[in-house]
Parts: sequence; C-alpha cells; structure tokens
Amino acid sequence: MGEVTVRLDQLPLRDDLRGLTPYGAPQAPLPVALNVNENTHPVPQEVADDILDSIALALRDVNRYPDREFTPLREGFADYLGHGLTRDQIWAANGSNEVLQHVLQAFAGPGRTSFGFAPTYSMYPLLTRATGATWIAGERAHDFSVSAESAAAQVADAAPDVVFLCAPNNPTGTPMGLDVVEAVYDATDGIVVVDEAYFEFAPREERSALTLLPGRERLVVSRTMSKAFAFAGARVGYLAADPTVIDALRLVRLPYHLSALTQAAAVAALRHAPTMLRMVDEIVAQRDRISATLDALGYEPHESWTNFVLFGGVADPAETWQALYDRGVLIRDVGIPHHLRVSAGTEEETTAFLDALASIESAS
Amino acid sequence: MGEVTVRLDQLPLRDDLRGLTPYGAPQAPLPVALNVNENTHPVPQEVADDILDSIALALRDVNRYPDREFTPLREGFADYLGHGLTRDQIWAANGSNEVLQHVLQAFAGPGRTSFGFAPTYSMYPLLTRATGATWIAGERAHDFSVSAESAAAQVADAAPDVVFLCAPNNPTGTPMGLDVVEAVYDATDGIVVVDEAYFEFAPREERSALTLLPGRERLVVSRTMSKAFAFAGARVGYLAADPTVIDALRLVRLPYHLSALTQAAAVAALRHAPTMLRMVDEIVAQRDRISATLDALGYEPHESWTNFVLFGGVADPAETWQALYDRGVLIRDVGIPHHLRVSAGTEEETTAFLDALASIESAS
Repeated sequence: MGEVTVRLDQLPLRDDLRGLTPYGAPQAPLPVALNVNENTHPVPQEVADDILDSIALALRDVNRYPDREFTPLREGFADYLGHGLTRDQIWAANGSNEVLQHVLQAFAGPGRTSFGFAPTYSMYPLLTRATGATWIAGERAHDFSVSAESAAAQVADAAPDVVFLCAPNNPTGTPMGLDVVEAVYDATDGIVVVDEAYFEFAPREERSALTLLPGRERLVVSRTMSKAFAFAGARVGYLAADPTVIDALRLVRLPYHLSALTQAAAVAALRHAPTMLRMVDEIVAQRDRISATLDALGYEPHESWTNFVLFGGVADPAETWQALYDRGVLIRDVGIPHHLRVSAGTEEETTAFLDALASIESAS
Repeated sequence: MGEVTVRLDQLPLRDDLRGLTPYGAPQAPLPVALNVNENTHPVPQEVADDILDSIALALRDVNRYPDREFTPLREGFADYLGHGLTRDQIWAANGSNEVLQHVLQAFAGPGRTSFGFAPTYSMYPLLTRATGATWIAGERAHDFSVSAESAAAQVADAAPDVVFLCAPNNPTGTPMGLDVVEAVYDATDGIVVVDEAYFEFAPREERSALTLLPGRERLVVSRTMSKAFAFAGARVGYLAADPTVIDALRLVRLPYHLSALTQAAAVAALRHAPTMLRMVDEIVAQRDRISATLDALGYEPHESWTNFVLFGGVADPAETWQALYDRGVLIRDVGIPHHLRVSAGTEEETTAFLDALASIESAS
C-alpha cells in the first residue's frame, strides 16, 4: 500500500464535504445477500449469450468514441415502455443515480431546492447536495402513505424546483396513486420526477405515471434496469419525458457518458425483455411469502409493491441485523426505528432468511 | 417522434444553462475520421477475445451491483503505471471527464475556481462551470509553450483551487516540462492535476509527472485508456494520487459508478498492455509524417508529443475544413485562428488526409 502522508482535513477539500463518509451499503460476502434490493436471479443464459454477441460486435469499434446520442438504446427503451413513446422522449445514463443527477444539474443545482416525502430513497438528498442544491424533506402518514391533498399542500408550501415521488417508495415499499402525481404536478411549477424503479413489481393492472406524460411537459418518469431486469451490474437507468426535457439533459451530460459496451449490452437485454422479466412473478410471490411469514412471526410488514419488504416491530434492529449476519444472511437497517428491510430473493434465499429470523427471537 | 410541446426556455431550466448548446464534436459518418484524437487502430483480435471472456464471466453476476471499490481494476492500473504505485493511490471513472469531474466536485465546486493555460482541453472550463466553479484562463507563449517562471507567476496571481496542466497539451500537442509542474505545485495551495491523456505518445525517455508524486499530496496525475489503449468506446479514465486524495474522491462519486462490464473489460485490456500499446510507435510515425508533410506544403505544424498535429498557416480554416469534408476527411476546427487539428490515423488514413489537403489549395 502507498504511504498515507496526510489526513483528509489537511487537503483543500470543500468545506461541505468535511467530516462526511462515502455513501454506500455495507458490502459483505455473505451466502445470502438480501440488502440492496437486487434481483437475485442471474440473467438467463440465452440472454447472456446474445448480450455477449452484441458486445463482441461493439468491441470491433471500441477504439472509437461511442454514439453520443445512444440512438438504438433510446429506441429500445421507447419500445419497451410503450404508451406511444418515441426515442426523442427517452434519456439514459450509468444507473438511475446518474439519470437523476442530470435532472438535478439541469433543473436544481446551486441556489435551488429539491423535495421528497421522507423516508424515501436515500440518494435523493445526497444527489441534491452533491449538485449544490438544498434538500427539503416532506412528511408521510404513520403508515408511510401520502394522500393527494397532503402531498399537494406540502409541495405548494415548499415550492421546490424538483420534486421526487418514489412510486412505489423505497425503503418502505409503499404504493403511490396517480392522483398524488397529478395533484403534486398541479401544485408546482417545478419538475416532478416519478421514480418508478420498482414499478414492474406492482400489481399488473396498475397504471404507470407514463400515462400522465401527455400534456405535462414538466413530468419525468424514471426507471432502472437494475431491479426487474436483473441488470444492476451493468448500471443502466433511464427516463421518459417531453423531448424538451431531454434537450435540457443534453446540456449537462458528459459527452460520451454511456460506453459502447453498456449500450450494446442494454440494447441486447431489451430485445429479451419478456425473458428478462419472467422472474418478476416469482419474486413477487417470495415478497408476499415474506410478508405473510413476518406477520405470523409477530412482526409488522408494510404493504409493498416492490421487491422488498420493510417490517416494523423489531425491538432492537441492530441486534436482529447482527444475529442474521451471524447466520449468513445480510439485510438492511435503513435507520427507521424498530424497522428492518429485506429484499425478496430466490425461494431458497427467502427460506434461509425466514428460518434464520424465526430461530433468533420473537418479535417485540 | 414525440410531439414537442414546449420550448426549452419555457421549462424551469437553470439560468446559467439558458442559451447553451450541448458540447460535443460534430459527428459525421465520413470514411476518414481524424477529428477527435481517437486511436484509429482496432483492438487486436487476441485481446478482444480475452476481453470477451472476462465480460462473459462478469455477466454471470450482472444481476448484482458491481464492486463499488473496483479493486482489481485499481490494481491493474497500479501495475501498468509502475513507479511503485499501489491500488490505494488509484481512482477510475467513466472516461477521464468523469475522473476530472470528481476532482472538481471534491476540491472546486460552488464559490471556488479552477485554472488552466489556454488554449487547452475544452472540457476543463465546461466541467468547471457544470460543477458550479469559476474558470480562470491563463496564457501561453506564442508557440503555445509555457515556462516554469511564467506558469508559477500566473498561478500565484490567480490563486485557484484546482490547476489543470495538460501535458502534453490538447489541442496544441505542446510538451510541458516537469519543471513547470514543480513550479506550479510550489506556487499554489490547491490541487494540481497533470493531465497525461496523451503521455504514451511522448518520447520514450521522457519522465511522467508520476515521478513527482512522492511528497506531493496535492498532486494528481490523470490518464485515459481512450488514446494509446484504443479504448475510447469503453470510457475508462483514471488517475494516481496520494491515498488521501482518493479518499476525497470517494465522497463525491456516485455509488457503483463503474459497471461490472467496464471493470471486466478494462482489467482484461490491461493484462494485454504491451499488445494494446504496440500501435503507439506506428501512430507516432504517422504523426511525424503529418508534421513533415504539412511543413513541405507550406503550413506551420506545431511540435506535438501527442497523437495529433495542430497546424497554422491556414488562410480560412472553415473553408479548408469543408473542402476536406467534401473529400471524405473529417478533421477538427478547434477555434484557433488560422489553425486546424488532425489526428494521426493509420498509414492509409493519414495518406488520404495528406493527399486531400495537397489537392485543395496551397497554404496561405
């Protein structure tokens, strides 16, 4: 290792970064990892083979810069999302974090504000501050829901430049009705981002906020390939919005931000969307099994439309987290008192979690 | 195409973005593209095959988030760079643009300044402004060189938080001696970034700024795989610095910013560094041939230690650029009066450029 010659506070670091630690869930090589809401099912071999063929083609030109406009990938997302969307309404980046960073760089940043109903995705405030803006936390009801009336009133009061509506919400799993989106949109002149990272795990008959895009030029609907598509390692997030919003994002992206390999891999994966998504039903079944078993064990699982379950009734979350860790099961303490969060894994992983939990203690 | 319902100025865009256009060189599908300093030699097949094998392995776990610390990749860069460097002194991101963005986010940003000797890499001011800082342009001599004395005086006067020293310089190709780096370092309390994107094209006996790292905890040496490594499409930039600087960059990176596919591809390419770099001598030979021929044609090529040549004596750069374009040759008008820039291509591409130029006009 190189010799450490100075401390961080001896470097000319920005004042607002002093004392911080890097963001990121604890990484630990445990047999059962259900802590970061991954899809624990590998990509099917037939799809992996096709992805590899596409990457082989891309490697032939990898000495050249990639297509800065990633046109085939935007077409792939438009086709997958449907609702009459076209490629000029699509944006993508290295994970939804970078997608949301672009939105904040264009529409928030220094001197502006962003807003979300806490507890919600922990990257929203971090991305907001990293781009120089100020984060405003709104409130949810005791069951983590938020009504259209309350949401609109809070947004009107805060008057933020960007609103994040995580639908369904992470880390609580809570559904959000489209009436909330409509009410919030009408209550602000700012950008409204509906983060549908987990939308594919919602009931099949539910409508996406994509249906609200026509006539709402400040509405943005973001998605990710990390969850339902089992593609977290490839880092591909995307969004749909008015073509003018896409033009705004072009002003802040780094040129060539999406590599030729990423573009090739994602385009190939999208060609196999039905296959990539066929594990969703199995994951939903395991999620519902988790909720039912937690309930039977005396815990208080919250309604979830995602691939994870937040549950209350945990006397000492740190202690329960460690007891599970000691049994080879990694879940997440998201910092909500008396709560823990677990991702729905394969049937075997889910069984391992439920057995481990049942073995250590009863609920408080 | 989706219907465009609003103009950009009707969206709540940040004021400092209004009126801007997206950055990026014109993209045009011409037979001979020598405009963006790519390595025009494809990756050798034996290396491409090994890269593909590594990506195939990575795809098995692509449903999981990638290694946030990209440890094997940092080890690969440390081995490649030598000079006793270890992985804790290495950082990487999606292209050197993102590497430099991280440096600016940590050490510049709102209320701070960055500095470079103009004309220099056009992304420095753009990255600076995009992260909320102010760009200060220093001056070069008429031949685009900068002496240690002048550099130190200008930096001491400007007192910037981050200094960019592009060595050798883009878009001029100009060498920069290590005496300049030493003098600038001593003239500032800020971070000094030596951008060695084109270092592999310098004379073999030249010392890298990496040799200056010991004892200089504010010195950063950045590199890229886009040029000598013929890997522009894969988007991999990196830097070496004190381990404490690396810790600072961890505070501003997005979690999981480097995909598992990018990590696998870059690690595999680094295993074949001698093969990947074997085209460098050929490119240097073509560069020197360009310079000699331009001189014979009556143009004024500037000394270059890169894979491109900036040449003066062009009566009307826009006219010459268009005449070359019409002959299927794409080069770059970088905005310096009476100058154009051309990348050294393969022998055939270089011949095509030189023949086209000779056919259209004599120098002014």
